[in-house]
Amino acid sequence: MLDYPALAALAAVVREGGFERAAAVLGVTPSAVSQRIRALEERVGTTLVVRCQPPKPTEAGTRLCAHVERVRLLEGELVAGLPVLGEPGRGNAAPVTLRVAVNADSLGSWFLPVMARFAERTGAFLDLVLDGEEHTAERLRSGEVLAAVTADPVPVPGCRMRLLGALRYVATASPGFLRRHAPQGVDAAALARAPVLRFDRRDGLQARWAQEVLGIPLDAPTHWVPSTQGFLDASLAGLGWALNPKRMADAHLAAGRLVELVPGRPLDVALHWQHARLGARLLDVLTHEVATEAKRSLSQPAEKQES
Amino acid sequence: MLDYPALAALAAVVREGGFERAAAVLGVTPSAVSQRIRALEERVGTTLVVRCQPPKPTEAGTRLCAHVERVRLLEGELVAGLPVLGEPGRGNAAPVTLRVAVNADSLGSWFLPVMARFAERTGAFLDLVLDGEEHTAERLRSGEVLAAVTADPVPVPGCRMRLLGALRYVATASPGFLRRHAPQGVDAAALARAPVLRFDRRDGLQARWAQEVLGIPLDAPTHWVPSTQGFLDASLAGLGWALNPKRMADAHLAAGRLVELVPGRPLDVALHWQHARLGARLLDVLTHEVATEAKRSLSQPAEKQES
Repeated sequence: MLDYPALAALAAVVREGGFERAAAVLGVTPSAVSQRIRALEERVGTTLVVRCQPPKPTEAGTRLCAHVERVRLLEGELVAGLPVLGEPGRGNAAPVTLRVAVNADSLGSWFLPVMARFAERTGAFLDLVLDGEEHTAERLRSGEVLAAVTADPVPVPGCRMRLLGALRYVATASPGFLRRHAPQGVDAAALARAPVLRFDRRDGLQARWAQEVLGIPLDAPTHWVPSTQGFLDASLAGLGWALNPKRMADAHLAAGRLVELVPGRPLDVALHWQHARLGARLLDVLTHEVATEAKRSLSQPAEKQES
Repeated sequence: MLDYPALAALAAVVREGGFERAAAVLGVTPSAVSQRIRALEERVGTTLVVRCQPPKPTEAGTRLCAHVERVRLLEGELVAGLPVLGEPGRGNAAPVTLRVAVNADSLGSWFLPVMARFAERTGAFLDLVLDGEEHTAERLRSGEVLAAVTADPVPVPGCRMRLLGALRYVATASPGFLRRHAPQGVDAAALARAPVLRFDRRDGLQARWAQEVLGIPLDAPTHWVPSTQGFLDASLAGLGWALNPKRMADAHLAAGRLVELVPGRPLDVALHWQHARLGARLLDVLTHEVATEAKRSLSQPAEKQES
């Protein structure tokens, strides 16, 4: 079998972002951590972690860390059934952490109650990795996370997938913004020049909406605001028009602080839940909570699909 | 002089995240973009952009992009004074974008009004880069941004620095969380096991507070939530205790949805504004708005320092 103390040292260095902190967590000296990892690298025949600040795992290192997470998850299940196995000195059943990739807009609009109920039911911990909904599945493919909320409908090998529903976006701006930049109404001419918000380089939602609803390519001056709440706040402040999650915009629309650019023309982004097939109870509980909250909070298609 | 059409192509590829999109913005074909960059690389004698998805600038490429941003900023000033210089076809004074690094908690708690007033006064655009307050200065040092909100008090060469004041954090948890995890009161024993939140691997605020206020090293089970609003929401949901910006927590503290772990023991993080010495009016306006809002929203020291 693999050298698990060395693997635990590697995972701790990556997770804690340093050899010293990893050593503190493991209760050994930093040089012991360093020796274990060097021995593992010699055995595997490749560098596993680049010694920079913070240390960065190589591709091989990432795979081994992902393996450690999976083994630890399965161990957690064993310990729950056989409490006598719990590590002495740290109490029974040292808490298990599941690393999960979520898109920022899901975290901002519906994922947090999932996290709260999961933690309450299981006592386990979540390590959220934020990425664009088009890119969370890559994190699953690389083994970095155990599960992902993703817009990618292509099943990741070794994973189960289910359609969660759609995160509904509305194209919004402040009333003052529209008076200033679209006094004649929202049309192609107005949107060619009106400032727009984008989350980051990969955020194509505004362009997609402009194409689908007004049939125009979008090439307007842009404020870049890489935060879900900041995006909404920037819309409210009149910095630009933007697609915001409907659940977050609704109260502001009702109060007249935001206006829909073209009423009744939302944009739906279908979201899927993909998770490793591990047969681990914790992942099943998380999947159940994700599916339950999604049914409540996401737009549901007329017919449901599962795979 | 350098080949500016080629530099503009390089900057567009990096900014837009692709050769096709850069070509659309520049109004040329993707192969023209590619040829210009290749010619520039031959002249400079090194690779400037790694052809992956999205394309990534090399260190040399990053420096050249930063140079383009600076030249463009100075050009914007010229155009404002001499409107006849504005590029034909795109209207006068094509909008200038300033790239600025901000820590997530500043964006969540006080930076947005700065952005709104700056945009209103100047018509210019901001491209926000989020990073930890300990790391925003590196972005300035590498030339990636023109200015940064940073906790780093070491002046970056070629930049001006001013102390903005302190972002005040309070250690908070939900009342239910404290009943469950600290029924005997918040002490070293309770915090050794009570779940804690961390923003990311580099977030040492909770550990710093525990060390300063209770004199203990923190090694408790952790939920990782890399979002300022998500962090506050997770605190409200009772997932863990955490340091939240006081401005964001205040209403929840007043309403009893959050409780201070040790009343009257906040943690202050001094923030500085560092910006390139360019003598550009837009940067001066932004600096003025940053300083004005900081005076209003950040805790001010008894004596002010400037450099």
